[in-house]
Amino acid sequence: MAILIYKGDRDITRWLEALKAVDDTLDIRVYPEVGNAEEITFALTWPYPHGLWNDFPHLKAISSIGAGVSHILEDKTLDRDMPILKLTDSRLNQSMWEYLLATISYQAMQLHRYAQQQSEKVWAELPPRGFDSVTVGIYGLGSIGKFVAERLAAEGFVVKGFANSSKEIAGVEVYTPSEVTDTVMQSLDIVVSILPLTAQTEGFFDQAFFARLKKGATFINVGRGAQLIEVDLIEALESGQLSHAWLDVLVQEPLREDHPFWAHPQVSITPHIASITDPLSVAAQIVENYHAAMQGNALHNVVDREMGY
Amino acid sequence: MAILIYKGDRDITRWLEALKAVDDTLDIRVYPEVGNAEEITFALTWPYPHGLWNDFPHLKAISSIGAGVSHILEDKTLDRDMPILKLTDSRLNQSMWEYLLATISYQAMQLHRYAQQQSEKVWAELPPRGFDSVTVGIYGLGSIGKFVAERLAAEGFVVKGFANSSKEIAGVEVYTPSEVTDTVMQSLDIVVSILPLTAQTEGFFDQAFFARLKKGATFINVGRGAQLIEVDLIEALESGQLSHAWLDVLVQEPLREDHPFWAHPQVSITPHIASITDPLSVAAQIVENYHAAMQGNALHNVVDREMGY
Repeated sequence: MAILIYKGDRDITRWLEALKAVDDTLDIRVYPEVGNAEEITFALTWPYPHGLWNDFPHLKAISSIGAGVSHILEDKTLDRDMPILKLTDSRLNQSMWEYLLATISYQAMQLHRYAQQQSEKVWAELPPRGFDSVTVGIYGLGSIGKFVAERLAAEGFVVKGFANSSKEIAGVEVYTPSEVTDTVMQSLDIVVSILPLTAQTEGFFDQAFFARLKKGATFINVGRGAQLIEVDLIEALESGQLSHAWLDVLVQEPLREDHPFWAHPQVSITPHIASITDPLSVAAQIVENYHAAMQGNALHNVVDREMGY
Repeated sequence: MAILIYKGDRDITRWLEALKAVDDTLDIRVYPEVGNAEEITFALTWPYPHGLWNDFPHLKAISSIGAGVSHILEDKTLDRDMPILKLTDSRLNQSMWEYLLATISYQAMQLHRYAQQQSEKVWAELPPRGFDSVTVGIYGLGSIGKFVAERLAAEGFVVKGFANSSKEIAGVEVYTPSEVTDTVMQSLDIVVSILPLTAQTEGFFDQAFFARLKKGATFINVGRGAQLIEVDLIEALESGQLSHAWLDVLVQEPLREDHPFWAHPQVSITPHIASITDPLSVAAQIVENYHAAMQGNALHNVVDREMGY
């Protein structure tokens, strides 16, 4: 019985320390130092070469290293019955909250427009706008999305949530796809994607979507890069339909050097920092799932493959 | 009995509407349309030419149009017994809170450094820093400062408050001047001035102050411009002692066109937007003080001239 980690070229020292701190009897191996493939019973993985996990006949479950699992679901070679596990983490919620609070309040205070004015040496007060006159649309109401939506509402923002199924969230109006009217779309000042990447969400934020928004709206992506049609975003920014975008996730990461986003004055790029999984905060949960898998007990946070999250 | 407003060149339509909405029997005059100077019994004023209020023999009180009163206290021609009134306003607290939450969370998330990296096309994650590892020092614990300090603590920041006298604020360590050690100064990641302008605070943020801070700290001024020695700030930014400054108040407003702050990459300028007095929110309080002054009753929010606030 051993855990095999696929890390790519990351430094995972802190992960190994955190797992050992929970259970120092664990046999943890780091790909490609596999040892006897027959002994591998649990996988912990970042994005990996598809097909990799089929080489381990006694594998019982594959755990993602974060909340996202699209890097595993995309591997069509995987046995349909192999449990895929995601992590949930209150630090992850908090980390996402901090990033979104910073960027949403920056946009709500129109600091992007004041930065533009400063570059033109213009001293002019814009019509003031309190948080309670700013409407934020949250796309994706999984555990992180719900957490963020509820806290934004408590902070005084008007919050509307968008999800496939109806949910109860304090202070938040929730819309399922059939309930979304033009009036709702026109009410949004700031649109945030915290969606998982699925067949339904790929390319979701496109020209048609942006055209339905209020002129001058803001787009913030902390979901997955492939949900956004990048050329459509640039067009919407340049026509003035959108005023600014914050992108923490991108189709290709790192962003390639000749990408127009780098130098675009209406685009703020951050290198996938919004939701950092803290090893210390999730190690116990991984170890618990490992032992459950070894003993044939019920696993936690099993992904529904049809839903994609 | 009449109220005289000194407005300078501002459009005060919304103020007049708000005051009339509270009491439509008020006789309100706007300088220089004074009428009979004997009839003026109450003043409401933005910065005005010193000596102006001595022309009204029956004046009972002078009210500032906001929380700040230095524009009145600086008028040394005023009768020492003339009551000077300030406004307190929950909208004002909220407006200040929103500005500070936006700028403090921007700095805490190191978004100023990511903006710099973007300009250099650098995709690199900085060591992550949660709100709970960021220490914010609040200078000035009047009604706005207390409100902001308490909410920042509730948001998860480590908050230290600095004031002339000790105060109890939930979640905040408060230091009087004699209690401030080098260790305390070195712990501050972000320094915020919400101080009133007094003889003690003029020029308070200078080379010696900045030198005591942790290297790379942030300075945010929402107090008054003259609290800052501007050349010392530029020197501290350029030496790397400070990483960034947000200035919403300046020695001279509007900032003159040839001022080095405009084009400084480590300085963000906003045109005095942090604490906007909303006429609708304070009109009742002004009218109440007016009636109290007319009837010889106790006034609210009378400024202590010795303290300066």
